[in-house]
Formats: sequence, C-alpha cells, structure tokens
Amino acid sequence: MADDAAVLETRDPRGVVTLTMNRPANFNALSEEMLGALQQALDRLAQDQSLRAVVIAAAGKAFCPGHNLKEMIAAPSLAYYQRLFAQCSRVMLSILKLPVPVIARVHGLATAAGCQLVAQCDLAVAAQEARFAVSGINYGLFCSTPSVPLLRNVPPKQAMEMLVTGEFISAQQAMERGLVNRVVTADQLDAEIEKLVASILAKPRAALAMGKELFYRQRELGIEAAYQLANETMAVNMMNECALEGFTAFTEKREPAWKA
Amino acid sequence: MADDAAVLETRDPRGVVTLTMNRPANFNALSEEMLGALQQALDRLAQDQSLRAVVIAAAGKAFCPGHNLKEMIAAPSLAYYQRLFAQCSRVMLSILKLPVPVIARVHGLATAAGCQLVAQCDLAVAAQEARFAVSGINYGLFCSTPSVPLLRNVPPKQAMEMLVTGEFISAQQAMERGLVNRVVTADQLDAEIEKLVASILAKPRAALAMGKELFYRQRELGIEAAYQLANETMAVNMMNECALEGFTAFTEKREPAWKA
Amino acid sequence: MADDAAVLETRDPRGVVTLTMNRPANFNALSEEMLGALQQALDRLAQDQSLRAVVIAAAGKAFCPGHNLKEMIAAPSLAYYQRLFAQCSRVMLSILKLPVPVIARVHGLATAAGCQLVAQCDLAVAAQEARFAVSGINYGLFCSTPSVPLLRNVPPKQAMEMLVTGEFISAQQAMERGLVNRVVTADQLDAEIEKLVASILAKPRAALAMGKELFYRQRELGIEAAYQLANETMAVNMMNECALEGFTAFTEKREPAWKA
Repeated sequence: MADDAAVLETRDPRGVVTLTMNRPANFNALSEEMLGALQQALDRLAQDQSLRAVVIAAAGKAFCPGHNLKEMIAAPSLAYYQRLFAQCSRVMLSILKLPVPVIARVHGLATAAGCQLVAQCDLAVAAQEARFAVSGINYGLFCSTPSVPLLRNVPPKQAMEMLVTGEFISAQQAMERGLVNRVVTADQLDAEIEKLVASILAKPRAALAMGKELFYRQRELGIEAAYQLANETMAVNMMNECALEGFTAFTEKREPAWKA
Repeated sequence: MADDAAVLETRDPRGVVTLTMNRPANFNALSEEMLGALQQALDRLAQDQSLRAVVIAAAGKAFCPGHNLKEMIAAPSLAYYQRLFAQCSRVMLSILKLPVPVIARVHGLATAAGCQLVAQCDLAVAAQEARFAVSGINYGLFCSTPSVPLLRNVPPKQAMEMLVTGEFISAQQAMERGLVNRVVTADQLDAEIEKLVASILAKPRAALAMGKELFYRQRELGIEAAYQLANETMAVNMMNECALEGFTAFTEKREPAWKA
Repeated sequence: MADDAAVLETRDPRGVVTLTMNRPANFNALSEEMLGALQQALDRLAQDQSLRAVVIAAAGKAFCPGHNLKEMIAAPSLAYYQRLFAQCSRVMLSILKLPVPVIARVHGLATAAGCQLVAQCDLAVAAQEARFAVSGINYGLFCSTPSVPLLRNVPPKQAMEMLVTGEFISAQQAMERGLVNRVVTADQLDAEIEKLVASILAKPRAALAMGKELFYRQRELGIEAAYQLANETMAVNMMNECALEGFTAFTEKREPAWKA
C-alpha cells in the first residue's frame, strides 16, 4: 500500500486492523475516493477469517467532516446524489455487518457523515478534544442519513436539537448521550482503545460474530420474535467448539484455549 | 382574536408563532375547547408556507394538567371517550406532522396529557420550577396515550416508574432522562427559547421540513429501509435550491442568502 | 412450601408476593429446577386476581449468576439447548405479561441471565454493592437472550460494550444507563422497595394491568398505531369502575375507595 493511499491499513499479529483515513489536507472528508477505499477495505475484511477487531481512525487534526462539499456540487443531478448517498450508506451498513467489533477512534472533529461514522461503529472512544455535530443544515442540507444511526444512539430530543441547530457537542456530552463509550485525554486514547481490543481478543471470534449479528437483528423485532431468534442463536453458540471449550475450561478451573 | 380565546396566537415578523394556552383559571386543561383550538391552529399553520417555528406556551402558573377532569366525567360513555382521546391524539400527531420545529416552553407543572404535550414536541425548554408527572393513575386512569411519546423519549424503567407511581420529577431529572432539552431559570426561559429559534431561523425551511419528516419516518423502519429512505430524502434535499445556495455560499466564503 | 424450595414465596395481606430465589450455595443460578419453580410461580400468580405486585429477590450473597454452567454442559445437544433457552425466555416473557408490576430487588451480583432478569422486570432497585455484567462471552457464549431486554433498557453502545467485554458495571452506572431505577445502601433496600410497592398499592389493580399491557404492546408499534391502541385502552379504562370512582372522589375532594 502506498503511503498516500486514502485509507492506510495496518494489521497487528493478533488480527487487529486499523483503518486510518488519510486525507488530512481536507480533514479526511468522505469523498468518493475515501468512501471507495473504505468500502474496498471493509469488503476484503469481511472475508478475512483471522480478523478479530477493526479500529477506524484518522490522520491529521480532524477525525472526519463528512462529505466532500466541493466534490458534491461539481456536477449536481438527482441520479448522482442517489448514487453518492447509497455509496455512503453501504459503507455504514458494511460496518454493521462486519463480523468483528468496529471501534471508532475519535481524536478530533467528527461532523455530519463523520459523526454518523462514529454513531454507526459498534463502540467509540473519544479524546477530550473531540467534538461532534450533524451540521449539514448549516449548508441547507439536513443530515438525513446521519440521523439514522444518531437516532439509534442518542435520545430523540437531543438528536433533533443537534440536527436542527447544527451545533457542536463536546466529547463529554457525546458520552453522556450515548454517542461514544469513553472519553480520555488525547495521550490516553490509544491505551483506552487497547483495553477494549485486549478484552475483545480474550473472547472467541465465533461467539462475537454470532452475537453482533444477533444484537442488530433482534433490535428490529418485537420482543417475542427477538427472544425466539436469540434462543436459536444461543443454542447454536453453545454447540460451537468455542463455548464447549469455554465451559470445559471453567469446570477445569483453567483459562480457555481458543484458536481465535 | 379575542383576548379570551382558549389559545392565543402571536406571530413575529420572522414567521415564529407562539400558541399560548390561555385558560389559567383551570391551569390550561386540555378541555374539548382547548383541544379544538389547538387543532384549529395547527391545521391552519400546517398550510402556512411562511411559518418557521412554533412555540407552545401557557398562561398563568401551570403549563398544563392534562385533560379537564370535571368535563371528562360529565357524560361518560365509551363512544365519548373514544372520541375524546382520538381528538387529543390527533393534536399530538399534528405537532409531529407540522413541517417546522415545535418547541415546548414549560414554565410550570406539566401533568398527564400536559406532560405528553411536552414529550410530543420536537424540542422542549423548561424553567427550573417546572415539574413533570403522568399522574392519571392517581385517579385510576393509567396515562396510556401519554405513554406513547413518553416511552419514545425516556428510558423504559424510568417511564414505567412515572406511570405506575404518578410521582413528579424535577426539571433537572426531566433533562437527564431526555424529556426536555434544556433547563434554565424562569427569567431566562424566553432567552433560551430564542436561542433555539434563532438557530432554526438561520436554516432554510425546506431542508428542515424534509428532515423532520424523515426523522420520524425512519425511526419506525429497520436500519436498511431507514438508510434507503434517508438516501432518497438527502438526494432530493441536495437538488433543492436551498442546498444549492448553501453549498455555493460555502465555496464562495459568504453567508447563504435563503428566501426562508 | 418447604424451606428448601428453589423459590420461596411469601405473600403479605396486601397481595404483595415476594419470590426469593433460594439456592445460595450456587448463587441462585437459573438451573432447570430454578426456572421451573419461577415459571410455576408466575403461572399461578398470573391467575391470582388479588395479586397487586411481585418482588423478585434472592437469598445469600449474590442475586443471580445466570444459567447453571455445570448443568449446561452435562449432556450437550442442540435440542437440549433450544429447550433450555426457550424455557428461560418463557420465564422472562411471563414477567412482562404478568398483570401487576414486577420489581427486581438486587442486593448483589447479577450476571448473564441474572442481569437479564433485572432488565426484564418492570422496575428494579439495587443496593450499592450490586454489580451487573453480561459475561457469558468470558466462556465463549455471547449473552444473546440477555441482549434482548438489555438493548431495550440501556443505550446501544453501552449495551454492546457490556456484551463484548463481559465487564462489570456498578449499581450507580446501572442506574445512569437505565438498567435500574434506584440505588440505595443495602440496609435501605427493603424500605426503598416498600416505597414503590406502597405507591403501587395506592392505585387500582385494573388500571395498572391495562396500562402495563398497553405499555409493552405500543412500544412495538409505529406511533400512529400506538396512539390508536392507547386511545382504545384509555377509553376502556375510563369506563372501568376504578376510574369512575377515582374521578368521582376527585370531584368530591376525598380519597378514592378502590376495592383493590
């Protein structure tokens, strides 16, 4: 991979992949190039059986300002915009469908579809300096697609306030409202993410994959159907070698020895 | 409009309408007269293309105690109650469907359907003195219709506690639980609402209208269908003159000049 | 009932039943015996017209650690696990369907399906010493069924963090995240639950039963269908003698005299 790729991909020996958005000159805007690079990486990672966790990070001062505004207005047409937003939403849904936990590493501004990216990740850790807004409305564009994961994370009146005012909230407010899991000083950001990653790595991949899929599927069901699906998932999980090893290790008072 | 109308309507030159419930002698109960006056105002405002925001306020000491209890038991019949609650729910849904943000200005007690009214507004600002309860259960009437927007704003165990105990929560608790956006001293209430209003007025009406409709529609969909609908809304929004002007102004480093 | 029953049932003259899980030697694990005893009690209570509230408590140091791990791996088969999780989910749904409020009394550790039990109750009060985790993942078993009520109580990123890390949260965090209603010192636990119980007893059973059923049914509907169902419930509630007495007492400035 070239150093000037839109998305830098690093992988540690444990199967932890960090995707770093790498267009600091335009604050890592979700240009078509950036969306394409993210989609390509996510598609490849979805097939990678040794993958254990993904961290989405960004180079430079900002995390992500959302779409590339200049690119967006170069050749306006309904068909173009339908294609562009479908491309962006496909990236978001690929995060949801990835069979490993995806953690946003938010060190700076996360705005519009950049804020959406944080909301769509399974987990998020922010530096105190990070700030969050869904500010498309400042340009006459309501952040409709960002509202999808925002409303599924943040209480509705607070989500609506962000969407109609376009105002920033602090990292602390983002944590209190459910948009991020943890807030730390910038120099503790990697250590805090490593804590989550280490905890995830101590669990077997197969159980996490079944669980993540179940988590988002059952959310869309009535509670009786949700329980039925969860019953089935859990029964299948119990018959998986990872649970058999986990439970045997428990009864033998030793640590489980999982392959992955 | 007569000074003794059930709902006083004031309109400023910017298109901001304040609907003031004006029956302080009975604490602005949602009598059939009051519900009728609110519905009439909301129906008229729904057609008003120059409307930009609505504030729902109340005269006298209380905000709203919910239904008029004496009126409710004057001539009991199932058909009457079905009609009455349908009338009330229609007012609530008209707030949701209005194409501009609706802000509750809560200066005092908001109880039962009065608390529901706050929950149903898009945004809400409360004075420190305001208190909130869904207290129909104290009279043997579970606040079933208030539970609809309450459960969509407040975490379920906290909502259930309010519904089965009928107890009051403070303005501060209402904010922490998601029922109101902001809490200020009584003398700052208008200034705080003006901040929200000014922020809304600085955005174009068309984008806010598309966004508000999308916000509530996508909430009821699974995430894939929600993204599809949001993609389409956002593409249409981009082709609207308000976004074209917003983005052009951005690239020209000037303020957007929106008509509304 | 024998003192060594899996579930001890006490009933006070007011119709308040306390179900105490009574296998402290194994921390009140949800063994098949325990699930069977809970189901039997809940089925019987569902038919009991003089029942007013249920408290779910536990003997010994812990509240409940979830399933009995040793029992779970004694004779593994998909059919067995399907049966076991269906049995457990049926207990959970029986709590939801019981026509009176169910309050969890959480004095100690609540883990995996034990944490689920807390989440599934209508209300929960915890001692400061209580801690909560969905820690099946530590044994290679994602807490899929616990995720069903957890995700309906706790913001999704916080729920996901608990599910993939298996880490404990404190009673205070559980309250902030919506998993329990109140946290008190251990010696205040019974007094705090009595406050909730006393408040519930001061309301009529019929209205609470209609309301609880409506609360969970409307949650699964779109907002217009939810309002329609709530309108009908409230009209029926108004025609019930409990509301007629409640409103008459109000107009006569006396306390309502409800039968139950």
